[in-house]
Amino acid sequence: MSLIIVGTVAFDAIQTPFGSSGKVVGGAASYIGLSASQFVKEQHIISVIGDDFPQAFVEELESRGIQTEGLERRAGEKSFFWEGKYHMDMNSRDTLTTELNVLADFQPRVPEAAQSASYVMLGNLDPSVQLSVLDQLYARPKLVVLDTMNFWMDIALEPLKKVLERVDVLTINDEEARQLSGEHSLVKAANKILTMGPSTLVIKKGEHGALLFNEDEIFFAPALPLEEVLDPTGAGDTFAGGFIGYLAHTDDTSFTNMKRAVVLGSAMASFACEKFGTDRLMELTQAELDIRIQRFVDLVDFDILLKD
Amino acid sequence: MSLIIVGTVAFDAIQTPFGSSGKVVGGAASYIGLSASQFVKEQHIISVIGDDFPQAFVEELESRGIQTEGLERRAGEKSFFWEGKYHMDMNSRDTLTTELNVLADFQPRVPEAAQSASYVMLGNLDPSVQLSVLDQLYARPKLVVLDTMNFWMDIALEPLKKVLERVDVLTINDEEARQLSGEHSLVKAANKILTMGPSTLVIKKGEHGALLFNEDEIFFAPALPLEEVLDPTGAGDTFAGGFIGYLAHTDDTSFTNMKRAVVLGSAMASFACEKFGTDRLMELTQAELDIRIQRFVDLVDFDILLKD
Repeated sequence: MSLIIVGTVAFDAIQTPFGSSGKVVGGAASYIGLSASQFVKEQHIISVIGDDFPQAFVEELESRGIQTEGLERRAGEKSFFWEGKYHMDMNSRDTLTTELNVLADFQPRVPEAAQSASYVMLGNLDPSVQLSVLDQLYARPKLVVLDTMNFWMDIALEPLKKVLERVDVLTINDEEARQLSGEHSLVKAANKILTMGPSTLVIKKGEHGALLFNEDEIFFAPALPLEEVLDPTGAGDTFAGGFIGYLAHTDDTSFTNMKRAVVLGSAMASFACEKFGTDRLMELTQAELDIRIQRFVDLVDFDILLKD
Repeated sequence: MSLIIVGTVAFDAIQTPFGSSGKVVGGAASYIGLSASQFVKEQHIISVIGDDFPQAFVEELESRGIQTEGLERRAGEKSFFWEGKYHMDMNSRDTLTTELNVLADFQPRVPEAAQSASYVMLGNLDPSVQLSVLDQLYARPKLVVLDTMNFWMDIALEPLKKVLERVDVLTINDEEARQLSGEHSLVKAANKILTMGPSTLVIKKGEHGALLFNEDEIFFAPALPLEEVLDPTGAGDTFAGGFIGYLAHTDDTSFTNMKRAVVLGSAMASFACEKFGTDRLMELTQAELDIRIQRFVDLVDFDILLKD
């Protein structure tokens, strides 16, 4: 099934204790699209770029089946730019620069060809943009997945709550789940968030894996223990892309299939951390992914013998 | 197979954001012994208490097959006492009081009856005490597991390194693994620690689960997502007791069996967090444990369908 993806297509500059990326292509929709393209043949991207953005990257997306009719190009304007610096633990980071540029007054437009998509991935972005996309759809999609972050909880909680009421799956990290629910226990947080709209919740815990909740069930997918994390930027977006990409490919939104999708999202995210920017996702082969999936299977594989 | 356990038998007073325990029985060997008794019928405890320690708890241990010939009782002296306060996250804590009392000059004595034990659990304690126990054994046990903490890395690193050279399995938490190895990546930390003596390493990550490493393999066991963590004190000791208790019960030290032991240790530790002190372990039934083990199985259970 085809997929609509909404999110930023932008420039990042990343500093870590181990190196700097310089200005590289990033943005939620870039990572989501590249990751989902490992699973689905047709995507429709909805985003905005300036005329400083490399056409080669747009063509790369197109070569992967990502239709760019909904990717607005603004002449004489600059693309969104984010600069950040990771702390020693590579989990927390400070924002050094945020230049909204074309994003400041972005009005998304859903192209006609995208109306047939049954799966929608609302990547991290202003909730009012996410709402506008949902409003433009002729019919309720089969599955809407929302990714967001604490920034929008701080400054746009009411619009965010409106989006929440209209999505099936929410993906956020553990601190965001605590902030959104006001509960410290993730189990309690999940129970509360599942009353806000989504019927399924993914709590991403970075190097500590991811939890999948619905009303009755919990599933845990580990993160792969990595020797080196070069750059975690985009790992959450890559996770989301793999997650919804697999669901759209299999067209199966059961909890059993979502468990597989969480593992595949985690596998994709593990690649994203291996290089700066989107490079690792661009060069990824199916054979490499298959090997990595097997490592996830092995990592949690045990058979228990109950006491005799 | 029978088991020697070494560690404190003591009093704790615990404050959390949600309540206070008052003065309760605690200590590494108390938790280890209670946890291991779920699996093994014969243990030999090596520790020291003052005459303020409740005889009823000693009898409880004895009723669970824990022989107390190596539990020294000092007349006119007080038991070890620790008081601590947990932060809001329930992971980090401050020590408010440490009264060594009988522990100040403890000289452990391995009773003759314990010499037949093939499994030895060196609970968190002064490394010189752990070394003394190993020195007193007539023969190398089949398996020695060491638990320790950052405190001993700070003040007794050299004796600790001597103990490390003589054990098969080390269990420490993630921050301790980083401190001991000087490596931030847990994979690199594990590789380095595995050159220091132990052939197997367990890195405990609290609510984020536990990693099991040997030279060639990695296994990850999740922690059970809990609605409430009332008191994590003793969870690591309870984990260690379940881990070695299961290995001693099955008398199988293969990596495959250690994976099961890590899951069982995690299951036992999840109970320890449910009440202050050792109460929850005392009342635990086999039926409750069986149900909990099934929850761990379900938590990570998935089947992956590779892309067609």
